[in-house]
Amino acid sequence: MRDTLMRPIGIIHTPHHDQAGAPIQPTFAEGARGTVTIFDPYVEALADLDGFERIWLLFEFHRSMGWSSRVVPYRDVVERGLFATRAPARPNPIGLSAVGLLSVERNTLHVQDVDMLDGTPLLDIKPYVPAFDAYPVSRAGWSDASASERRVADDRFEGR
Amino acid sequence: MRDTLMRPIGIIHTPHHDQAGAPIQPTFAEGARGTVTIFDPYVEALADLDGFERIWLLFEFHRSMGWSSRVVPYRDVVERGLFATRAPARPNPIGLSAVGLLSVERNTLHVQDVDMLDGTPLLDIKPYVPAFDAYPVSRAGWSDASASERRVADDRFEGR
Repeated sequence: MRDTLMRPIGIIHTPHHDQAGAPIQPTFAEGARGTVTIFDPYVEALADLDGFERIWLLFEFHRSMGWSSRVVPYRDVVERGLFATRAPARPNPIGLSAVGLLSVERNTLHVQDVDMLDGTPLLDIKPYVPAFDAYPVSRAGWSDASASERRVADDRFEGR
Repeated sequence: MRDTLMRPIGIIHTPHHDQAGAPIQPTFAEGARGTVTIFDPYVEALADLDGFERIWLLFEFHRSMGWSSRVVPYRDVVERGLFATRAPARPNPIGLSAVGLLSVERNTLHVQDVDMLDGTPLLDIKPYVPAFDAYPVSRAGWSDASASERRVADDRFEGR
């Protein structure tokens, strides 16, 4: 089965310069604002996006080094299988966040609830469609049982 | 900004052999069952996944050829900007589907509501966490206004 080359289509600017202290998920970002700059060949493909209140950003965890089968996730105190977590240390380092879309200005998206690091390479944008994406009642394993109050990351997954 | 090589971590088996007639999204899959075979180096990372009712599969649209800035999405009749759609013809051909997890058996996940084609390369698995992923009330642009009853795809994005 062949490998695939992924090429950044833009860059995400956020107020988060280091993993330590960055919000763990958009849910914990307290409205933090950011901008997404889309590279020229892809700007026309932004048409009609402004009708969506929320969008998925698929991005590269560019500061994560390597991957581990088991990790202690930010919101737990014991090791969990990597695929049962949203930790950045993944075989294919793809991040996924549903952010709020404030406005679209030519090649720039103004967004809120950003949890990724400043300078993150963007791989894809998809509209958030509740009929496809929202399962508000869905059992969530260890995460349901977690008593963690943690809302920000530390540097446990940061390579540099 | 550098490119990144993505390497499949498994393969998704589904009853859908051609794009034409395949469900457009898990929502329209009517419970269709599939299996995900995880390659050996990644099996240990499945620990704890069985506690989750639903999981995100990130996969490669391996039968999609090239990309277009504007497409007529399955559930509309006019052209839309690509990033305002979930169409497979994307610069980085990453698919995203929330499927139901029935059971985990060593290197095999039994899943339902599969909308991807048989033989699809798997790139990542993430747990579906309602607190991070579910926004049941979120304005969805042209999709909200669509009167389309279409639930299955045709071959408009298929290369071979």
